[in-house]
Amino acid sequence: LKMSKGTVGYDVITYLADIGQDEDFEVARKKAEKLGAKKVYIEDLRKEFVQDFIWPAVQANAVYEDRYLLGTSIARPCIARRQVEIARKEGAEYISHGATGKGNDQIRFELSCYALYPEVKVIAPWRIPEFYNRFKGRIDLMEFAKKYDIPVPVTPKAPWSMDANLMHISYESGILENPKSHAPADLYLMTKSPKDSPDTSDELELEFQSGVPVKVTNTKDNTSKSSPLEIYSYLNEIGSKHGVGRIDIVENRFIGMKSRGIYETPGGTILLSAHLDIETFTMDKEVRRIKQGLSVRFSELVYNGFWYSPECDYVRHCIAKSQENVDGKVQLSVFKGQVYILGRESPKSLYNEDLVSMDVQGDYDPCDATGFIRINAVRRYHKADEAPLCLLNSLQSSA
Amino acid sequence: LKMSKGTVGYDVITYLADIGQDEDFEVARKKAEKLGAKKVYIEDLRKEFVQDFIWPAVQANAVYEDRYLLGTSIARPCIARRQVEIARKEGAEYISHGATGKGNDQIRFELSCYALYPEVKVIAPWRIPEFYNRFKGRIDLMEFAKKYDIPVPVTPKAPWSMDANLMHISYESGILENPKSHAPADLYLMTKSPKDSPDTSDELELEFQSGVPVKVTNTKDNTSKSSPLEIYSYLNEIGSKHGVGRIDIVENRFIGMKSRGIYETPGGTILLSAHLDIETFTMDKEVRRIKQGLSVRFSELVYNGFWYSPECDYVRHCIAKSQENVDGKVQLSVFKGQVYILGRESPKSLYNEDLVSMDVQGDYDPCDATGFIRINAVRRYHKADEAPLCLLNSLQSSA
Amino acid sequence: LKMSKGTVGYDVITYLADIGQDEDFEVARKKAEKLGAKKVYIEDLRKEFVQDFIWPAVQANAVYEDRYLLGTSIARPCIARRQVEIARKEGAEYISHGATGKGNDQIRFELSCYALYPEVKVIAPWRIPEFYNRFKGRIDLMEFAKKYDIPVPVTPKAPWSMDANLMHISYESGILENPKSHAPADLYLMTKSPKDSPDTSDELELEFQSGVPVKVTNTKDNTSKSSPLEIYSYLNEIGSKHGVGRIDIVENRFIGMKSRGIYETPGGTILLSAHLDIETFTMDKEVRRIKQGLSVRFSELVYNGFWYSPECDYVRHCIAKSQENVDGKVQLSVFKGQVYILGRESPKSLYNEDLVSMDVQGDYDPCDATGFIRINAVRRYHKADEAPLCLLNSLQSSA
Amino acid sequence: LKMSKGTVGYDVITYLADIGQDEDFEVARKKAEKLGAKKVYIEDLRKEFVQDFIWPAVQANAVYEDRYLLGTSIARPCIARRQVEIARKEGAEYISHGATGKGNDQIRFELSCYALYPEVKVIAPWRIPEFYNRFKGRIDLMEFAKKYDIPVPVTPKAPWSMDANLMHISYESGILENPKSHAPADLYLMTKSPKDSPDTSDELELEFQSGVPVKVTNTKDNTSKSSPLEIYSYLNEIGSKHGVGRIDIVENRFIGMKSRGIYETPGGTILLSAHLDIETFTMDKEVRRIKQGLSVRFSELVYNGFWYSPECDYVRHCIAKSQENVDGKVQLSVFKGQVYILGRESPKSLYNEDLVSMDVQGDYDPCDATGFIRINAVRRYHKADEAPLCLLNSLQSSA
Repeated sequence: LKMSKGTVGYDVITYLADIGQDEDFEVARKKAEKLGAKKVYIEDLRKEFVQDFIWPAVQANAVYEDRYLLGTSIARPCIARRQVEIARKEGAEYISHGATGKGNDQIRFELSCYALYPEVKVIAPWRIPEFYNRFKGRIDLMEFAKKYDIPVPVTPKAPWSMDANLMHISYESGILENPKSHAPADLYLMTKSPKDSPDTSDELELEFQSGVPVKVTNTKDNTSKSSPLEIYSYLNEIGSKHGVGRIDIVENRFIGMKSRGIYETPGGTILLSAHLDIETFTMDKEVRRIKQGLSVRFSELVYNGFWYSPECDYVRHCIAKSQENVDGKVQLSVFKGQVYILGRESPKSLYNEDLVSMDVQGDYDPCDATGFIRINAVRRYHKADEAPLCLLNSLQSSA
Repeated sequence: LKMSKGTVGYDVITYLADIGQDEDFEVARKKAEKLGAKKVYIEDLRKEFVQDFIWPAVQANAVYEDRYLLGTSIARPCIARRQVEIARKEGAEYISHGATGKGNDQIRFELSCYALYPEVKVIAPWRIPEFYNRFKGRIDLMEFAKKYDIPVPVTPKAPWSMDANLMHISYESGILENPKSHAPADLYLMTKSPKDSPDTSDELELEFQSGVPVKVTNTKDNTSKSSPLEIYSYLNEIGSKHGVGRIDIVENRFIGMKSRGIYETPGGTILLSAHLDIETFTMDKEVRRIKQGLSVRFSELVYNGFWYSPECDYVRHCIAKSQENVDGKVQLSVFKGQVYILGRESPKSLYNEDLVSMDVQGDYDPCDATGFIRINAVRRYHKADEAPLCLLNSLQSSA
Repeated sequence: LKMSKGTVGYDVITYLADIGQDEDFEVARKKAEKLGAKKVYIEDLRKEFVQDFIWPAVQANAVYEDRYLLGTSIARPCIARRQVEIARKEGAEYISHGATGKGNDQIRFELSCYALYPEVKVIAPWRIPEFYNRFKGRIDLMEFAKKYDIPVPVTPKAPWSMDANLMHISYESGILENPKSHAPADLYLMTKSPKDSPDTSDELELEFQSGVPVKVTNTKDNTSKSSPLEIYSYLNEIGSKHGVGRIDIVENRFIGMKSRGIYETPGGTILLSAHLDIETFTMDKEVRRIKQGLSVRFSELVYNGFWYSPECDYVRHCIAKSQENVDGKVQLSVFKGQVYILGRESPKSLYNEDLVSMDVQGDYDPCDATGFIRINAVRRYHKADEAPLCLLNSLQSSA
Repeated sequence: LKMSKGTVGYDVITYLADIGQDEDFEVARKKAEKLGAKKVYIEDLRKEFVQDFIWPAVQANAVYEDRYLLGTSIARPCIARRQVEIARKEGAEYISHGATGKGNDQIRFELSCYALYPEVKVIAPWRIPEFYNRFKGRIDLMEFAKKYDIPVPVTPKAPWSMDANLMHISYESGILENPKSHAPADLYLMTKSPKDSPDTSDELELEFQSGVPVKVTNTKDNTSKSSPLEIYSYLNEIGSKHGVGRIDIVENRFIGMKSRGIYETPGGTILLSAHLDIETFTMDKEVRRIKQGLSVRFSELVYNGFWYSPECDYVRHCIAKSQENVDGKVQLSVFKGQVYILGRESPKSLYNEDLVSMDVQGDYDPCDATGFIRINAVRRYHKADEAPLCLLNSLQSSA
């Protein structure tokens, strides 16, 4: 529910995006209508989410701080893009969202809105003192809801907050705020526990074109999918079944605070493994090195909310360019929380079996390596001070 | 066996490093003596390997091309360092090794030797035409061994090549050269198959000081280790038991060819997860960003054989500097090939529970975020051309 | 004048830093006293400015956006550091400054203050609506000054704004805001016009230790200086005399707007040339490459106001480390706005005359280059699409 | 002269590229014919050199190690490209060049040849022991020439070596090998000494489209040029007249040795200044930051001989993409060795005069800056150890 009820002279149009979360959209519609929304938009954005947002992230091997696959970060510009389209169509001057004042999502929503609709004004209640001073906790909110007859769930909320979409579920806050506390086993909603997952693996073949999957086949039962949404949903199904993609991290928010988050990204984790494999197989080593640097930048930009920015457009363009030959098939097995790459093949492979063989020479003269090594040794080496080792040694002595 | 028999007027000193591989060193000693070695050095370098080579890699989160933990790459300078010490002590003018002419190891050995002993001459038989033309395959070598009464294993070699040390085993060549072929299940020698690994997890607490582990405790049975070699060996034991650290990749060698490698790095994989966790918990976000870039560089340098180089010394120094506050404890669970981080604590943590809390304000004014976002939106956004998306769309239509 | 008069119950302590600007400090003192300052601090920070701020910038070859030498950027943390010391000593809870709400300086002052005195509160009048709405232009300010008997200069201000210190003078705003307008010839106060500068050059020898100058000698008249402030002042004198260091640029402010600035940095420009020379002469190529990347980061951090930040401390440490062997002497000539490097020598040089000589072989075998080149050609080259050239060609046809 | 005389059964085809050097091509043709060349190619590549090689370098602001504009580096692939075309057309199996075995040019020629004609074999006499052992110095060569009646210049060669083309002249070796020796005043052939250059400036307006110049106008005499070759030649003319673009540096060769080079690049230096100006005026700040990193990479790749490589194609593509809006006009003045930017204008400018103005508010609320600054100060600052300063202080005390 992106806009709350207006009681003082504003027309309110509500907008709810279906990006794959488990939600009763009809209940949401009725609630919005009941509360006086002038118009109610509930939109299925799942296809666009996969094609326009998840696919570029796959091409980039997008990972924030070495671990987080950005499931929430890339959903925000997808939601905001449609929100802005509706706002423009309806002539809305204000846009509102319910993100808190301490998080990343406020930034992601608002930077997207300002980029696509520069003259819009944003209402973020959780940054308005009258609002957040009045509603200091859940009880205040429940009382308000009761007073104004706003239907709210009766079951008590889990003692943490969640964000769910097709790509992942994230869990944070509440009892998770203590970084030492272990997550309870029943927290995870999207993946089976590896302890309870099947004792036999599934084996998949994933086919890529230009760095995005175009087909997935389960080689055990021949299930096969070939549209983006179906592929991604099937990878989610397999990943979930085998408990793939659970992480527990402390990450750095854009606004400079550290935050503990738990994520489960079943399909995305499978795709990341497979894409890394086919990419290295088909891409020149030095191109990949440059692209790897751009990917780190891309991940930071997306995490920080700059999906719609000149630099993110630029980086996305450069990354897409690097993917032109990333075609081929990867065979992998999924089992007990892990993805195991088994083999790969590609019409565009730069792998040269003769060249690398220990049994045949290929078009390669080993004598050349002598010169290569000797030239690489021309620069003079001064025995360096042993600072890092000293540091370690001093540690050892104290241990 | 680092130097082969000399028959034409050279004294040969043999040198064999124990860096944790499974080998019968007494057999090796006898073989060397029997073949006429003037002197035989067999040295246990395991402690130095852990402290001086693995620990800096842990501090760096060293990973090559997003996946390979550099188990062979960091062993080479360790072996070469001692080899050079012996060569200098013995007054040897030549150093020899048995690495092939197509691989990375020749470079790693020789660059280390040239750096530490610039005037040394290197003999690399596999790059000498008289040698490699005479010994075209296993049969030629076996015949030569028979003729000169050189003891060789009678059991046929596995149809691939292996490199083993305390940190990992690598498998490549032979039937693995076809990148599509799946590795046989019985290839792995260092880790149990996740299919056969225990159905209950082990839980560890790893304590770090300055970015290196100083203690590991198994919280189920209170096993505890605190010297570097014992810690690493114990992590190997746990990792092996649970099938942790298996990867199958295609990587880019320094000499520009792609190569398929299979690796198992049980202890190193646990350490990487744990170090990533404690590092992000204790290190400033922007420092970490800079350090992350240096780590990518470090990994490339080490992979390419530049451990002993001005730039690798420099990067190692900078990385060690970044680790000064990376102290604390990480709790984790190891199960069926996976490492799950459960929680962390640190006296040097930069995590501020009040600041990040959704329930209390902490020293933070949400209104500030409004200005932050608005200033971040000052730059003008021109709707970018949709090149990456078009590219994807054209793919979809053909699918 | 860092704090304006308080009339409503606050004690005001004024603080004015002498960082080399041309100013009558006694007049300033009297003015502050007359206006009721409780205490007046006027401090000569020139030595600290050179040693603690300019020197690290010299080590870094600090340049923002390829041209700006950061003369204002590095002065701000110098001023703020002392301001905070005074504020702490005096028990001041508030700190104020006169920087505008659109510029970089507000950020530089305040981030420094928050870093060094986290609990301080900042008063920035030009961001307080009651203030900036009341004083919309010069006339309002003059009237206020007259009414309250505040002495102000009677001569009309130049039609631009200036910031001067020992390192540079910057000019911006006013008639310079039109990026097309040429700067008037009489704008420059720190350097002679190259058109009027002497027709004979000065020749200097600059001696460096650890990347900072320790001595400058004019080889024509044997003038010599060896304390940091004297060296820098002398380089300014020579640079000014010959019209060195004038630039006219459009730069990107941290807050995302482009701004036109004109700068003159006479001594700094000479130092940059000389340091680049001695650094490349004494530093390993690959170390320098890594350091160059850190320097770009350093320059951005300093420009953006993060002098006192974990990452800037870290980068400064790493850069200083790289300078350990940057010792030696550079001979140069200064003439008509230009610095010409003439020669260099160093006890730590990595330059090897024999090695590079076309006349003697040195310790180098040209045959090695063959292998080096051939291995560098192992990667396969696919004739690339000619996109960039097409782009150029299409331009040409339209021209 | 790219191929020397064959006397033992090989047909020799000679190829000489005109890339703007001052050379008597007819004399060269006759000499080749006289020496028995089967065919003589003398080709004017100046247009291609400007358009396909200099222009991309301009777009990149290509500078190696902060100073060298790559005038030789980008000429090599231009020459080699045509050489390969001729070799293929003529069915030549071998290609030869006269570059030494210690320099960069051998690498640049050969990597280009191997990339464009992978099966070609390269003959590099200066790396063949029979050749370089026979011709140890100039005298041996002169005797050989005399014996075989090969016409050679009678005037003694300057005591250094030169490489000249449309973009620059480089000087190295000989008496310049001593890095301390100052270059003699009469060394420079392409530019007037600033001491003798005119006492009045020239003023130019340079118009760019997509980051390359499409028109130059001398605003004093209305001279105007608009084809690539004419533009570049005219910039050379003006730059030469005013002594622009002389540098004396020590640089790092790809093969790991340091080398002293003196360069004059008159037109290129003007273009670099102008392009930097128009680029920052029209390009988003963050895009430019990413592009700047790619440019450093581009310069290294080109210097090292990788013009024709997958990664250089990739980087060139990305850089060209960044230039799409780099349109506009730059006014500048050229005087006594210096280029002074005077002003700029562009239909694609991102400069917003209202936004940046100190007199009008524009679409900007100064209050936002407060939040921006405060959020940027959220990360905790630990007073860093003062290592860099200590280091400096210890220096000072010894001074």
